[in-house]
Amino acid sequence: MKRTLTTDINRQIGKEITLYGWIHKLRKLGGISFIVLRDRAGLAQAVIDGARENDKLKELTTETVVKITGKVVKEERAPYGAELHDAKIEVLSPVKEDIPIAINKKEINVNLDTLLDNRPITLRSPKQRAIFKVQAEIVDEFRKFLTQEGFTEINSPSIVSSGLETGGAEMFEVKYFKQKAFLSQSPQMYKQILVGVYERVFETAYMYRAEKHSTSRHLNEYMSLDLEMGFINSWEDIMDLEEKYLNVLIEKLGKNCTEQFEMLGIDLPQMSKRIPRMKLIEAQEILEKEYREKCLGAPDLDPKQERQICEYAAKKHGSEFVFITHYPSKKRPFYTYDDPDNPKETLSFDLLFRGQEVTTGGQRLHIYEDYIKKMKDRGMDPKNFEDYLSAFRYGMPPHGGLAIGLERLTARLLNLDNIREASLFPRDINRLRP
Amino acid sequence: MKRTLTTDINRQIGKEITLYGWIHKLRKLGGISFIVLRDRAGLAQAVIDGARENDKLKELTTETVVKITGKVVKEERAPYGAELHDAKIEVLSPVKEDIPIAINKKEINVNLDTLLDNRPITLRSPKQRAIFKVQAEIVDEFRKFLTQEGFTEINSPSIVSSGLETGGAEMFEVKYFKQKAFLSQSPQMYKQILVGVYERVFETAYMYRAEKHSTSRHLNEYMSLDLEMGFINSWEDIMDLEEKYLNVLIEKLGKNCTEQFEMLGIDLPQMSKRIPRMKLIEAQEILEKEYREKCLGAPDLDPKQERQICEYAAKKHGSEFVFITHYPSKKRPFYTYDDPDNPKETLSFDLLFRGQEVTTGGQRLHIYEDYIKKMKDRGMDPKNFEDYLSAFRYGMPPHGGLAIGLERLTARLLNLDNIREASLFPRDINRLRP
Repeated sequence: MKRTLTTDINRQIGKEITLYGWIHKLRKLGGISFIVLRDRAGLAQAVIDGARENDKLKELTTETVVKITGKVVKEERAPYGAELHDAKIEVLSPVKEDIPIAINKKEINVNLDTLLDNRPITLRSPKQRAIFKVQAEIVDEFRKFLTQEGFTEINSPSIVSSGLETGGAEMFEVKYFKQKAFLSQSPQMYKQILVGVYERVFETAYMYRAEKHSTSRHLNEYMSLDLEMGFINSWEDIMDLEEKYLNVLIEKLGKNCTEQFEMLGIDLPQMSKRIPRMKLIEAQEILEKEYREKCLGAPDLDPKQERQICEYAAKKHGSEFVFITHYPSKKRPFYTYDDPDNPKETLSFDLLFRGQEVTTGGQRLHIYEDYIKKMKDRGMDPKNFEDYLSAFRYGMPPHGGLAIGLERLTARLLNLDNIREASLFPRDINRLRP
Repeated sequence: MKRTLTTDINRQIGKEITLYGWIHKLRKLGGISFIVLRDRAGLAQAVIDGARENDKLKELTTETVVKITGKVVKEERAPYGAELHDAKIEVLSPVKEDIPIAINKKEINVNLDTLLDNRPITLRSPKQRAIFKVQAEIVDEFRKFLTQEGFTEINSPSIVSSGLETGGAEMFEVKYFKQKAFLSQSPQMYKQILVGVYERVFETAYMYRAEKHSTSRHLNEYMSLDLEMGFINSWEDIMDLEEKYLNVLIEKLGKNCTEQFEMLGIDLPQMSKRIPRMKLIEAQEILEKEYREKCLGAPDLDPKQERQICEYAAKKHGSEFVFITHYPSKKRPFYTYDDPDNPKETLSFDLLFRGQEVTTGGQRLHIYEDYIKKMKDRGMDPKNFEDYLSAFRYGMPPHGGLAIGLERLTARLLNLDNIREASLFPRDINRLRP
């Protein structure tokens, strides 16, 4: 008989159907038993009556993989409003010992290390699995949206001979045959080169940072949603694009992930069509005035100030997202475009969301001579960047781009305490498995 | 004025429009000049008349980034059947020196090393860029197709403590803080674990093989299109799925990439709805009979035999794809499912396409005890695989999966001589840049 998914059973009332999945819960009450079955779509309840079928359950424990056939009966209290009666059960994969962590309770009551150490088990908990269903949707919409906007997907190498940003500092070293290589910390060089080919490119890939700190906001291997766009009219085009993506995304999540948001007890973020934008210096003025923070002129906001300015934006502008712009030139990478009106500031931005930076972006230099000048100012040798510079030597349009930290965005969207909860198999200074 | 893309100009006959892009070709004939402009979409011709505009062209060279405004006139001989007249030109990014490699000829006449060493330039050639437009379509359709089939996208770590397949041999070593780690050579362990969570999962990510050979068919960093599917009824479900994907893909390419295939002078592959399937031993019998190859009983086909059996399948079955099945157990990884009818053979397959293997797949073991037995038979210590095994300890459905080598598939589809041509920035034993 054809397989039915748990989420579809209420369309089969009165019919005999077959479900496949895991025994999520098992309750034996003398001559009658109740099974909650879990499949990839959701949960469904089956009622097992009669001695013969109940005998089969004697040896069974949760997580046993089974096939259940039965008649669908309307039942308001069951998931999706229906349950299986007169169910017959067939074991596909037996389980010999009890699962050491209860994954069938509303909350999985373990600490973070236990949660992560036992990912092959703990991810089976409906709440845990909901997180990565939402995450998959974020990535899917990023690609769909950009493809519609004329972007081309690219793959840049992860094994590189040096870094654009730090030239090897804070990069993981790879033994590459007889050479020393590194794991890429950003596709920056490649995506800019490819603006010269496709104008608009994006990439969704792991990036690597060998930072030694272990905080709730950093991963050493993280998924970067990168884009770069040529022929911009203004650096604000990049922010406009992200704004448009986020609006489309939130709408999509409201449609496709209602169940996940409900299960996680989360509301969709408060969002305005236009995300408020303020210069760093303006943000600092607000922080001084509203929060008595002494920060005017500092090169960046600290974590506390990031939370405060987000709180302010939500209250004042009805948006949990806020763009902070015009970071000082000396704090941004050499390829950043300085503001012609004030060369100490840059045409760059961070996007803050619920108290954390989730995106960095801005306009880049596009004229060859500007690169040479900036590199010399910073004591960098252009000879070390020949591949990169060759793109600019032969004509590059005005362009800019951004990088979204996927786990950051997921964690803030779902109010997860620690960024590790937004990675299926996180890597940090102490964690190299599973 | 709003930007028009080159491919859209024939819908604007009689109107004044603005194009942005690179000067692809420039021909000056006294008082009149012809510019072929290249943008992300294609090429368009503009006619520059009058002394003032032609004066501006004096200093210009190809690859200069420009804005061109003019009136669209029907012209059968121009690309897309129209060209710009009375064009006015504005330079956005000047180019001071001539590009060292001509990228505006029909063929880019350089050897492979020069082609790859100068990727920032050579990728601008329309033919080169067409390759990766097709490649992006292959990946996009893989994800779209599987999402529709109920699959969930996953991200497995690239930095791992050991390998499932070879336990460290042929893996790149990473200095991970104070620990020794490796770059992942396959997401096998993770995708199987996640069958326990999502039933059906896929991943598109780089994988790494530290193989020392330098052939036209191998890359050390390659893009793997991976999937794994639970609750299969038969191991043939996996082949059915790939067959369906390839049929959808080829149809899609026929619609979306006509221009690219024309430019590259390639036909879509010959394909039947059902891809022929034959056991390795049957393929060997055919090779002996038809090609006088002495290969009966060998554990695999060699490259020449792969070409021959593909030729045979095309001639005999009208399909340039052919599945070879039932590889010997001792030649396949420990997690492969042995054929119950003949345990020396496995329920596994390779997909050959135009003479090369582009996919490996099959059913996997799903019963915990079967893993323990297989590991012991092979002298492996189950203790080293605790994370992996914990998934099987607590219930896993019958499942199988496959991995497609993206660059292999692209190279065969487009008849590229060397797999490196199907990677934007390939990595091999000698190549670590650009």
